[in-house]
Amino acid sequence: MADRLAELSARLAELGCEALLVLASAAQDPDLAPFVGAVHLGECQLVAPRGGAARLAFLTPMEREEAAATGLALITPEDLDHTRWQSEALEPADLTAWVAGRALQLSGLSPGRIALAGHGPAGVIQAACARLAKDGWIWVPGNSVVLALRKRKTAAEVEAIRAAATGTCEAMRSVARLLASATPVEGALWLEGEPLRIARLRAEIAQVLARHGLEQPKGNIVAPGDEGGVPHSMGTDERVLKPGESLVVDVFPRGGAFFADCTRTFCVGEPSEPLARAWAAVRAALERAYQRAVPGVRGWSVQEAVCALFTEHGELTPISSPGTTTGYVHNLGHGVGLAIHEQPIFKKVSGAEGVLREGDVFTLEPGLYHPEQGFGVRLEDLVRLDDDGALENLTPLPYELDPRAYL
Amino acid sequence: MADRLAELSARLAELGCEALLVLASAAQDPDLAPFVGAVHLGECQLVAPRGGAARLAFLTPMEREEAAATGLALITPEDLDHTRWQSEALEPADLTAWVAGRALQLSGLSPGRIALAGHGPAGVIQAACARLAKDGWIWVPGNSVVLALRKRKTAAEVEAIRAAATGTCEAMRSVARLLASATPVEGALWLEGEPLRIARLRAEIAQVLARHGLEQPKGNIVAPGDEGGVPHSMGTDERVLKPGESLVVDVFPRGGAFFADCTRTFCVGEPSEPLARAWAAVRAALERAYQRAVPGVRGWSVQEAVCALFTEHGELTPISSPGTTTGYVHNLGHGVGLAIHEQPIFKKVSGAEGVLREGDVFTLEPGLYHPEQGFGVRLEDLVRLDDDGALENLTPLPYELDPRAYL
Repeated sequence: MADRLAELSARLAELGCEALLVLASAAQDPDLAPFVGAVHLGECQLVAPRGGAARLAFLTPMEREEAAATGLALITPEDLDHTRWQSEALEPADLTAWVAGRALQLSGLSPGRIALAGHGPAGVIQAACARLAKDGWIWVPGNSVVLALRKRKTAAEVEAIRAAATGTCEAMRSVARLLASATPVEGALWLEGEPLRIARLRAEIAQVLARHGLEQPKGNIVAPGDEGGVPHSMGTDERVLKPGESLVVDVFPRGGAFFADCTRTFCVGEPSEPLARAWAAVRAALERAYQRAVPGVRGWSVQEAVCALFTEHGELTPISSPGTTTGYVHNLGHGVGLAIHEQPIFKKVSGAEGVLREGDVFTLEPGLYHPEQGFGVRLEDLVRLDDDGALENLTPLPYELDPRAYL
Repeated sequence: MADRLAELSARLAELGCEALLVLASAAQDPDLAPFVGAVHLGECQLVAPRGGAARLAFLTPMEREEAAATGLALITPEDLDHTRWQSEALEPADLTAWVAGRALQLSGLSPGRIALAGHGPAGVIQAACARLAKDGWIWVPGNSVVLALRKRKTAAEVEAIRAAATGTCEAMRSVARLLASATPVEGALWLEGEPLRIARLRAEIAQVLARHGLEQPKGNIVAPGDEGGVPHSMGTDERVLKPGESLVVDVFPRGGAFFADCTRTFCVGEPSEPLARAWAAVRAALERAYQRAVPGVRGWSVQEAVCALFTEHGELTPISSPGTTTGYVHNLGHGVGLAIHEQPIFKKVSGAEGVLREGDVFTLEPGLYHPEQGFGVRLEDLVRLDDDGALENLTPLPYELDPRAYL
């Protein structure tokens, strides 16, 4: 926390800002959570003056215990004169502006440049900021400032992600067990006396994750055959699985505040020749990604290496064919933490957000998609660059298409 | 949907706006979901011109199938020239501004007044709007416009909420079963050979909800004794339950897109005289709320009636003692739908958002809190005003403190 506040001050200085202001509708806001930890708060705001201690403003006396648990200096509902504005029933934008103006002032700040972070209702944020701008406050985009602070994970954060990854692996093994127990009947897979549907696998995943204290606020992907040929198709619950087709299972649950993320592709029975070839290419691409993802390397360089490999396999890539919807059609990975997509990023950028460093936690997830041939393949590990720069796989599972490899 | 678009046009006319613009980081955004349904989309935007058809802008070809499933007119990544801006790695605010400007233009709009809704990163939204303002776009807060559209639930929405409420009741019954099976040993409750901790009840709730396809993105409250005396304390996992103390269990899960919300208060063994008295007063307050919550009545009037009853019982209320932290310390309820807190509201407001109407789904949740005496009591039903104006209880459970009443 002390490290992060020092880093924050350095970034605020670069931006010429006096403070960071975080607007949040809940303590879980990924820009607020690094400062307040796991507490239960509704709408609240944080002011972190450059070089000073952060202050948390909360809006209802009901949350006094939770606010105190953050260990931060507090701006209380009484400081904010909440009984007055409650009885006057302020418009949301007026309330947000009032709280922010007062919190900034109580933090010893005068109108000047403020980095703005947090998340909330677009119309309210725009109007509140416009109102405060009339008082002389000048807004600088600050979400990326907190994103950068969150890039290097602390030991406690790694443990939280590791716990989520462990439950994720268990869910994947459970899916594999069900698939391995299924039997083909007239072109369909059957299990437990009925056709095996996507919904059955989803229920299994939810049960296993719940046992590990994990939830899926962003859902999941369980996408067979042609559905798996489009990387972001979730898969249709009623769809019955068929022998020999691909099944992309992408699980990205959250435990407490932190996400994990893992994908495997299964095939019950004999894969088609093109599917088997695609799997082998994706497996090789993941291997190459593991070799190239070392501290100091740009995520984009690893993406380039993977694209080169896919090109050797005769596949289109975003580099050879920008916007392609067949072949390799996406980026190689993304950071994972309080948000499912954070830094490092694997896009063609030149900043620090695109460079892999010790302490980063991110996915490596090459894939090949041929919806016209009715399949997709993706293999995704969640990995961490440890303090020695070695890659640790937080999702150590088999990679095989055959679910029996998981037993 | 047609009804809602007509209502939207009327509201846009009142505000003098040409269109609604919804900025969203996912299809689940509660301001976007009413237009797009249950699909899997990342960052996207919706433009609904006054009197015209809504258009959805999505940012990656990977989401083409999901975008098509919305049935809306689409603004595709190609329309947005996405390969160009992907290779140029635009700043988030520049990207948001570019997409919004282009989506508005492709929807046939020229710079003018636009109602702004949706949710997202505060710094990005502020900067994007400031950039577009230079082109002549004028922003009007629009989150409340969509909130108002969402107030009256459709039949399909009621069914989704009902399903979530059914699972919520099952979770509550499971908690009651565990409590009823617990035995007192030297001042603590024991179950399954060990002291009964809050964590055990939380695990049970998660399991039951998962079986019903429900998750808890906002967590839950399982707060014993003094912890339950502060309404928003979540309760400490390690805390061991004691005979005779209160236990507030507030479960507010989401199934698909819709929330439910229900609270019961338990006591294993003999409640203290003050706890029993508080329970009886809260039970009477809920009964009074049921009597008063009819179409056309202001939520605030029902709050006033409940406050009057609590005053008769010698309790402080937010009306008699603004800001009180003992007695009755909060509002009577809130609308429930795509968000856990939506319209109708029970605050002292004069607009339509504060008037109960047919089709509304909301909570009634009187409570009494005496942290200094080590207890809290809250009883919360999720109810619906049906088309005939009758109140339907979506969480039909016993109200008794004794968990054996649930068996």
